[in-house]
Amino acid sequence: MSSIEARLSIIEDRMAIQDVLNGFCNAVDSLSDMDGLLKCFTPDAIFDLSGIHLPKFETHTAIRGFFTEVFKGMTHHAHLSANFTVDALGENSASARAAVLGTGVASDGNSVLVYVRYFLDFVRTSSGWKIKQLREAALMPLPASLTEIHAR
Amino acid sequence: MSSIEARLSIIEDRMAIQDVLNGFCNAVDSLSDMDGLLKCFTPDAIFDLSGIHLPKFETHTAIRGFFTEVFKGMTHHAHLSANFTVDALGENSASARAAVLGTGVASDGNSVLVYVRYFLDFVRTSSGWKIKQLREAALMPLPASLTEIHAR
Amino acid sequence: MSSIEARLSIIEDRMAIQDVLNGFCNAVDSLSDMDGLLKCFTPDAIFDLSGIHLPKFETHTAIRGFFTEVFKGMTHHAHLSANFTVDALGENSASARAAVLGTGVASDGNSVLVYVRYFLDFVRTSSGWKIKQLREAALMPLPASLTEIHAR
Repeated sequence: MSSIEARLSIIEDRMAIQDVLNGFCNAVDSLSDMDGLLKCFTPDAIFDLSGIHLPKFETHTAIRGFFTEVFKGMTHHAHLSANFTVDALGENSASARAAVLGTGVASDGNSVLVYVRYFLDFVRTSSGWKIKQLREAALMPLPASLTEIHAR
Repeated sequence: MSSIEARLSIIEDRMAIQDVLNGFCNAVDSLSDMDGLLKCFTPDAIFDLSGIHLPKFETHTAIRGFFTEVFKGMTHHAHLSANFTVDALGENSASARAAVLGTGVASDGNSVLVYVRYFLDFVRTSSGWKIKQLREAALMPLPASLTEIHAR
Repeated sequence: MSSIEARLSIIEDRMAIQDVLNGFCNAVDSLSDMDGLLKCFTPDAIFDLSGIHLPKFETHTAIRGFFTEVFKGMTHHAHLSANFTVDALGENSASARAAVLGTGVASDGNSVLVYVRYFLDFVRTSSGWKIKQLREAALMPLPASLTEIHAR
């Protein structure tokens, strides 16, 4: 049995990485909070949407570019993350996954609803846990509107 | 670094307030458990649905009035709360938010599905954490059936 | 107030049983990980779908038989578990519930989406917490496709 301190730290770390994911979903759904969104990621983070037929974005600059378009193009967003599962938890790195229902409406009236898996790699930094990589994979068939909306 | 006792209490409080939200959702979906529903709220609590074009209810009496109608009028309910995020946690008060998928069927066959944000304020009472205010805001466009069902 | 050790164990146990449920959902959605699925259950576990008009399966053998068909017959699955609520937590047993959105596509193109309640009984074993019984109940009306898909 680990020490009380070590056991407590594991619980705190699990909660902290889940908080980062929730913070990301909240920022995505705000359709405006770019700072809140970017602070979930390390500067060199990879946001990989190739599993759902969209690009792979590397670094804050690229991620900001994508979400600038998303925030401009969408009028509504809702992302519900469930089944948060910690696959690995080390001193300064962690991996987790979640099942996410993401839905939205674009300013041209088009709408989208996807069920996807998020695979997340986290690293501990001097300002807390951050996403080093977020990779998405489809759980259910992807609607055509997903690429229509994001390929504008 | 806080003491073990303080760190443990933070975790317990976070879990306890999330339990209150889950207890509320469970009671709403039971379509019968009014006591279980009301005990999630302080007697003077505000349940504010003005963000989704429904009334704002203040006190147990008003909340009970609303859910008496809801329990009578609905045959099915499912509310799934995700992305539970603690925005502030003090000694005796806390604020949190969640993204919620709420769906139901009314006895006249009408149905509803909404994606909403819950903004929650909690206070610690002698019988545990309670909701002092629950305010809902729309994440996705609201269907006409929402007001059809609740304006009867 | 309980001892630090006892309070910490309660938190760890709550997380551990939720991990088992999440592990089950992940395995169900993998459409392939039978070992990961079965290890969530005790060998004599009951997986009771009678509340949603499907059979009740007892023991690993029966559960494996059901999911062998499911994994063969489905091309896509997504199960999102929310509102995890611990109803009872003892030294070596626990009860919990969750609200689950389950959706899938069958290889013949048929599709299904249900909102169900999971009622879970867990026991602590030498290899961790396991599901002793998982009973499902409908929250929303069940689509005809549910029995079409699973009665093949």
